[in-house]
Amino acid sequence: RINGDRLWDSLMEMAKIGPGVAGGNNRQTLTDADAEGRALFQSWCEAAGMEMGLDTMGNMFARREGTDPEALPVYVGSHLDTQPTGGKYDGVLGVLGGLEIIRSLNDMNIKTKHPIVVTNWTNEEGTRFAPAMLSSGVFAGVHEQDWAYNREDAEGKSFGDELERIGWKGEEEVGARKMHAMFELHIEQGPILEAEGKDIGVVTHGQGLSWTQVTVTGKDSHTGSTPMPMRRNAGLGMARILELVDQIAWSHKPDAVGAAGHIDVYPNSRNVIPGKTVFTVDFRSPNLSVIEDMEKRLRVEGAKICEEMGLEVSFEKVGGFDPVEFDKDCVTAVRNAAERLGYSHRDLISGAGHDACWINQVAPAAMVMCPCVDGLSHNEAEEISKDWATAGADVLFHAVVETAGI
Amino acid sequence: RINGDRLWDSLMEMAKIGPGVAGGNNRQTLTDADAEGRALFQSWCEAAGMEMGLDTMGNMFARREGTDPEALPVYVGSHLDTQPTGGKYDGVLGVLGGLEIIRSLNDMNIKTKHPIVVTNWTNEEGTRFAPAMLSSGVFAGVHEQDWAYNREDAEGKSFGDELERIGWKGEEEVGARKMHAMFELHIEQGPILEAEGKDIGVVTHGQGLSWTQVTVTGKDSHTGSTPMPMRRNAGLGMARILELVDQIAWSHKPDAVGAAGHIDVYPNSRNVIPGKTVFTVDFRSPNLSVIEDMEKRLRVEGAKICEEMGLEVSFEKVGGFDPVEFDKDCVTAVRNAAERLGYSHRDLISGAGHDACWINQVAPAAMVMCPCVDGLSHNEAEEISKDWATAGADVLFHAVVETAGI
Ligand SMILES: NC(=O)NCCC(=O)O
Ligand SMILES: NC(=O)NCCC(=O)O
Repeated sequence: RINGDRLWDSLMEMAKIGPGVAGGNNRQTLTDADAEGRALFQSWCEAAGMEMGLDTMGNMFARREGTDPEALPVYVGSHLDTQPTGGKYDGVLGVLGGLEIIRSLNDMNIKTKHPIVVTNWTNEEGTRFAPAMLSSGVFAGVHEQDWAYNREDAEGKSFGDELERIGWKGEEEVGARKMHAMFELHIEQGPILEAEGKDIGVVTHGQGLSWTQVTVTGKDSHTGSTPMPMRRNAGLGMARILELVDQIAWSHKPDAVGAAGHIDVYPNSRNVIPGKTVFTVDFRSPNLSVIEDMEKRLRVEGAKICEEMGLEVSFEKVGGFDPVEFDKDCVTAVRNAAERLGYSHRDLISGAGHDACWINQVAPAAMVMCPCVDGLSHNEAEEISKDWATAGADVLFHAVVETAGI
Repeated sequence: RINGDRLWDSLMEMAKIGPGVAGGNNRQTLTDADAEGRALFQSWCEAAGMEMGLDTMGNMFARREGTDPEALPVYVGSHLDTQPTGGKYDGVLGVLGGLEIIRSLNDMNIKTKHPIVVTNWTNEEGTRFAPAMLSSGVFAGVHEQDWAYNREDAEGKSFGDELERIGWKGEEEVGARKMHAMFELHIEQGPILEAEGKDIGVVTHGQGLSWTQVTVTGKDSHTGSTPMPMRRNAGLGMARILELVDQIAWSHKPDAVGAAGHIDVYPNSRNVIPGKTVFTVDFRSPNLSVIEDMEKRLRVEGAKICEEMGLEVSFEKVGGFDPVEFDKDCVTAVRNAAERLGYSHRDLISGAGHDACWINQVAPAAMVMCPCVDGLSHNEAEEISKDWATAGADVLFHAVVETAGI
C-alpha cells in the first residue's frame, strides 16, 4: 500500500502554487505559476532518484529504471495545469499519485522489470489554449506540433512562445517514446461513485467531445436610438443558440450533455447592441452518432435562427475527440487491483476527456477514478477525502506494478 | 454662417487621437487618449482667446467674455469621450461645433452680451464607468460627487483615481456655475432625419432610460461530467433573460426599446458550465410608466425564470433618467434658427441620453440634431456629411447668439 499521508501532504504543497480566490487553484498552463509547479514536481522526482525528460511540447517524463534493459516503460501520470477557477485535485492527483508509487517502491526497495515513467502532460485543460489535452494529442499524433504551437490565448499569445517564455520547452522529439502501457488516476468529476458509495471507478470508456466555436455577427449600434425593427443584435442571436444547445442535449437524454462555457461579447458596452458574439459549444456523448447529430443540428438550426434575425453566423470546430474504449487488459489490471485490495468498485464511462484517451491510440491505456464531493469539478470548491485519494493511488500502484512486473 | 471646412478639419484632427481599429475612435473616458484630446481642445480654445475652467469632475469650461458683466453665460457643448468602438462625431461634433461658434464670432468681430462657455463634459458614454452622463449629472446635483468618484471600471480602477492620474481634476467646485441657457448639438444616432431628408432635428424631448445590472448565480462545474439534471447553468439563465428583455420591449411597440450590451461570463472557460453571469439590461421609452413597467417585469419574470432553473438572481439599478421635456424657449430658438437659415427641419425625441438632459434640470436647455448615415452610431463606421455638420453648427450658432444677445 502507498503512503496516503505523504500523498496528501504533496497535494497540499502543490496547491500553494497558483492559488485561486476561493480555496482552489488558478495554475493555468504556461503561466509563471505553471513553471513553478513544474519545478517543484521536478525537485520531488529527483529526490526520489528519477531522471527528468522534457519534450518539445513541454511534456515531463520522470523515469525510474527497471531491471530489464529491453523492456518498454509503463507510464503513469496526468496534468498539473488547472482551470482558471479550478480545484486542487483535477489532474494533480494523477501526477502526484504516480510520484507516490515511486516513493513507495523506493521505501519497499522493490525493483520492477519495466521502467516506470511519471508524466506531466502540458495543457490538458484547454482553457488558455484550445483544445484540451493538447500535448498528449500531439504526442499521440492527433495534432501537428506546429499547429499546436500556433494556438493562441485570448490575448493573442501563442502556445509556442509561452512555452519558451516559461523555460519548459525541451529538446526531445514529441511522440518518439514507445510505451508498454499507460495508467491515469483522476477524480471522477461526476456524482456517480459518491452517490453509490463506491471507492473506485474502473474506467472502461470515455465519452466523446465536440467543441464548436460559434461567431454571430450583427451590427453594433446604439441601444437607445436604434429602433427595434432595425436591430441586428448578436447577443440575442447567441441567447437563442444557447437555448437550442440545451434543447439538443436534452433531446438525447440520458446519453448527451451540452453547454457553452466560453462567451465573449463585442464591444461589450452597456449602450451598444452587441455587433459580435463568439462562444464555444461543448457537446459530449459516449455515442459517436449522437455527437455527430448534435453538431449537425447546431449548424443547421443555428444558421436558421440567425438567418431569421438578419445575423450572420459561422461555425468552427476547435476541439474534439471520438468516444474511447480503453485497453481490455489494462482495464482488467485496474479491476483486479481494486478487487485484491478490497475496495468497492464499479465500471465507469468517463464524462471528461483525459490524456489517457489520446495515449490509448498509441499504447494500451486505462484509468482509475476516485469519487469527488457532489461530483463537483472545474470549481475551486472541488474536494476529495484523503481516504479516497489513498484508495485511488493504491489501486494505481497495484495496476502499475502488476503491469511493470517484479 | 460658420466655417464648415474649419469645423470639419478640426473633427478630423481630433479623430486622430485614440484611433479605433476600423476607422472610428476608441477614446474612452479618463484614458491617456482622453487626456490628449482634452489638451488639444484646450490649445484650440486658448488660440481662440478663451480661458479654460476645470471643475473637480474634470468638466472643461472655455469662456469667451460678454459685454454685460452681470449677464450669466450661455453654455454650449457636449463630450469628447467615445465608446470603445465609437465614431468620430458622437459628442465631438457638439464640442467642436461650440468652438466653431467662437471662432466665427471672432472672425466676424461680434461681441455678445452674455458670455459664451464651450463645455466638454467628462464621461458621457458611461462604458468604462456606469452610468452615462456621469459628470453633467453630478453638475446638476443628480449624483453625489463621492459616489461618482467611487465608480469602478471592469479592472476595479475608480473614476476618482483615474481622473487624478490623467491630470484633469480641477479645483473648481462642480455645479457652482449658474447658466443663462445651455445648447447641445449632436448627431441623431437614429434613422429618422436621413430617411425623411431633413437637415435639422429640433429636439423637444428625450426618452428616459433604465439600466439594470443582472447577476445570475449558478454553480461552475464540468461541462463533460456534470449530468444535465444536476446543472445550474448561469449562462442558460442569462440566455432566457435576454429573450425576455426582447419580448418585453416588443410588447410596448413602438414606444420602447430593450437590449443588453454588456455581458460577462465567469469563469469563461470552454469546459466549465458558467457559475455566474453579469449583464446590464438597457430599457428606454419616452413614457415613464412604460419604463417602470419594463423594469418591474424584468425583475418579476426574470426571478421566476431563475427560480425554475435553480439559479439565484439579483437586480441592481446602475443608471437611469426620466424622460425629459426641453425648455420651450430654447427649443423655439433652435426651431427659429433652422427656419431663418432655410434648413428643412422636424421636431424629434432623442433616443439617446445627453448631457443637456441633465443640465435641463438646472438651466433652460435644448438640443440641435443633424442626420447620420443609416442612423448608425456607437459603431466605428458612424458617418455624417460635411454639409450636415455645417447645417447643425449653423443652427447652433444662431440659437446661441440669439440667446446670448448682441
Ligand atoms: N478532465 C478534464 O477536466 N479535462 C479537460 C478536458 C475536458 O473538458 O474534458
Ligand atoms: N448620446 C449618447 O450616446 N449618450 C450615451 C448615453 C446613452 O446611452 O444614451
